[in-house]
Amino acid sequence: MHPWKTLRRETVLQHSKYLTVENHTVQTPRGQIIADWSWTIAPDYVNVVAVTADGRYLCFREMKYGIADLALSIVGGYLEPGEEPAAAARRELREETGHEADDWTPLGAYRVDANHTACTAHFFLARGTRGVAARNSGDLEEQELLLLTRAEVRRALLAGEFKCLAWTGALALALLRD
Amino acid sequence: MHPWKTLRRETVLQHSKYLTVENHTVQTPRGQIIADWSWTIAPDYVNVVAVTADGRYLCFREMKYGIADLALSIVGGYLEPGEEPAAAARRELREETGHEADDWTPLGAYRVDANHTACTAHFFLARGTRGVAARNSGDLEEQELLLLTRAEVRRALLAGEFKCLAWTGALALALLRD
Repeated sequence: MHPWKTLRRETVLQHSKYLTVENHTVQTPRGQIIADWSWTIAPDYVNVVAVTADGRYLCFREMKYGIADLALSIVGGYLEPGEEPAAAARRELREETGHEADDWTPLGAYRVDANHTACTAHFFLARGTRGVAARNSGDLEEQELLLLTRAEVRRALLAGEFKCLAWTGALALALLRD
Repeated sequence: MHPWKTLRRETVLQHSKYLTVENHTVQTPRGQIIADWSWTIAPDYVNVVAVTADGRYLCFREMKYGIADLALSIVGGYLEPGEEPAAAARRELREETGHEADDWTPLGAYRVDANHTACTAHFFLARGTRGVAARNSGDLEEQELLLLTRAEVRRALLAGEFKCLAWTGALALALLRD
């Protein structure tokens, strides 16, 4: 199977640290040349499925701008420049919940879009978490912390109440693994 | 919990039918005003977990530009203008595999990004599919059709071989439901 080729790339918008847009001229595996292939670059991020020592899933109820509605969510955030995904996962877990864990399992790294976006989501499962500090999120949202049972998470997940692709994917992988 | 507010929006890049970029001035739930919130608009899409009458999962091995590597994938594609997600799912299943199904289950609609993107992924499970036509994909990729068992799909999924968030999420939801 032939690879895609990038024949030319140019930056067409440098918006902020959250978005750069490039235009690529690409050659498809079948040889067709496409001169206006959009390519957006956004920071990689982590999501953490965090389960306490007594089997409760650390979730939030919150408003996110891109969802425009109350949704259930999980721990997550953007990587800092130069930060390793596993370090970002530990940092976000501690900032957003005040918890730490010794039992970490990577759940994989996934491109957020198969065609037009350079952004990777890194998923982790943290088991046996314990509260060690106050919650100290510098984030923009008001988050209500919830301690859900596995059955509650599974029901809400299959009902579509985790309304974002990444939260849904990370949780479904974690539950499937158990 | 307070909502986010959009105080101002302007188009800063109209790239193609696959990408429009806006700049939003937003007010966060805590009252902070952010004047450079990027907002990308891309077409909604569908993915279909398709299972034949004898329990085989219709998957592909293919090269995608945004993954830059061979990956396992599933049926999917962008909605045509004005097309309903369920109709797009039936169309993509037929185009990419030559299969139809009578037994359809929606697996939910998910925002592809919780912060900066207007794009929704609609997932479906199609059971009892049967081949009715030749494959007739107008897509740009070379796709190798694979008929995988549930155990093969589960193993590949947990090994991270479906390298895109949407394919992984849709399959994990489908397997979790079974």
